[in-house]
Amino acid sequence: MAPRKIELFYDIVSPYSYLAAVALERYTRGHRPLWDLELVWRPAFLGGVFKLVGNVPPASLPQRAPYLLKDLTRLARLFDVPMAMPDPFPADTLRCMRLLTAVRLAEPVHLGPLSLHLWRRHWGEGREVHSDEALLGALGACRVGNAEALLARTGEAEVKAELKRATDEVVARGAFGFPAYFVDLDGEDELFFGSDRLELFAFQLGLPWRGPRAGAGAGS
Amino acid sequence: MAPRKIELFYDIVSPYSYLAAVALERYTRGHRPLWDLELVWRPAFLGGVFKLVGNVPPASLPQRAPYLLKDLTRLARLFDVPMAMPDPFPADTLRCMRLLTAVRLAEPVHLGPLSLHLWRRHWGEGREVHSDEALLGALGACRVGNAEALLARTGEAEVKAELKRATDEVVARGAFGFPAYFVDLDGEDELFFGSDRLELFAFQLGLPWRGPRAGAGAGS
Repeated sequence: MAPRKIELFYDIVSPYSYLAAVALERYTRGHRPLWDLELVWRPAFLGGVFKLVGNVPPASLPQRAPYLLKDLTRLARLFDVPMAMPDPFPADTLRCMRLLTAVRLAEPVHLGPLSLHLWRRHWGEGREVHSDEALLGALGACRVGNAEALLARTGEAEVKAELKRATDEVVARGAFGFPAYFVDLDGEDELFFGSDRLELFAFQLGLPWRGPRAGAGAGS
Repeated sequence: MAPRKIELFYDIVSPYSYLAAVALERYTRGHRPLWDLELVWRPAFLGGVFKLVGNVPPASLPQRAPYLLKDLTRLARLFDVPMAMPDPFPADTLRCMRLLTAVRLAEPVHLGPLSLHLWRRHWGEGREVHSDEALLGALGACRVGNAEALLARTGEAEVKAELKRATDEVVARGAFGFPAYFVDLDGEDELFFGSDRLELFAFQLGLPWRGPRAGAGAGS
């Protein structure tokens, strides 16, 4: 029995979430998607996950940091996505994730395109995703209505609580970092972690895997 | 210009090194290998790497440990290798890695088969790789001569120093965990980390990638 949805928990601060989201979008969107799965976008706060489970960003290890930079540059070519290091890194994405939470509550249809737009800005171009200008610009580019009102909601208790709730939920379901994606497999809530587990995810579900470009040519 | 060798630094304690080694063996061995690369086996001591760079095993994070167990079980199916959790884990592999170091010095032709044999015992069957019985049994199964003398060399200063030298070397070259594999690419010493970077490695080198089974059928 084919599962019907894949829930992707992510934070715009996470470059490996960016890679995973782009690839998942390729596999699940369009007229005849390779995977007959609904991609459910679940914004959450990575800083909160780390705090709850006692984890730290992988680049915290000084010996690892230069490797990670190289790894991302290489993966960007493999995934065929633009990649530029944001400065400062890591950015504070709390307000950005609150905006995505407000969009999820009010205009969920825009959540995927808006998230991908913010990633392309932050990780594709290295630009900040904190200011009014950045966030209103992203809402405008994705044709989300009531942009000013949505941005104002980032200061509201309901939105703050909802982001915290999503963060608590993903930890309760076993996550310790992002991207964390879940699928119901024979009644079990199965967690996968990382942009490097997409082939494994496909294998477990009996879905086709044609690489992170979803079968698009190497030159595309 | 095709690179000529890939150096694999590993420790038998590391299950992701086991997966990477099996896959690399499939791509580089046999009559007409998919990759025209020489696989160079470089035994080193993962505990020493962690100590030198201030890293810890990924399962040290309590929230991550159950996921890693599931991840290994899933990957074993994807890679089509046997997998069983050793008890106790992590094992003390210092003596085992000294034996592999002694073999590297005296009988390097046996190093690959012996390493794979020890992994199949430790990670394929969950058995210890510390006792005389285990180590002499592995040497015998791989038809390595002078088994008693090689085992005795694990107590010698030269072998201890050589293992330490390899461990220092891999850290100096940028590693922070295993598997760490290196290739010379346009004069640069390029590090790759993890059993999940084999496709990326192939992509960077312009080599064919047919999954961790190297194109063998899903049922094989």
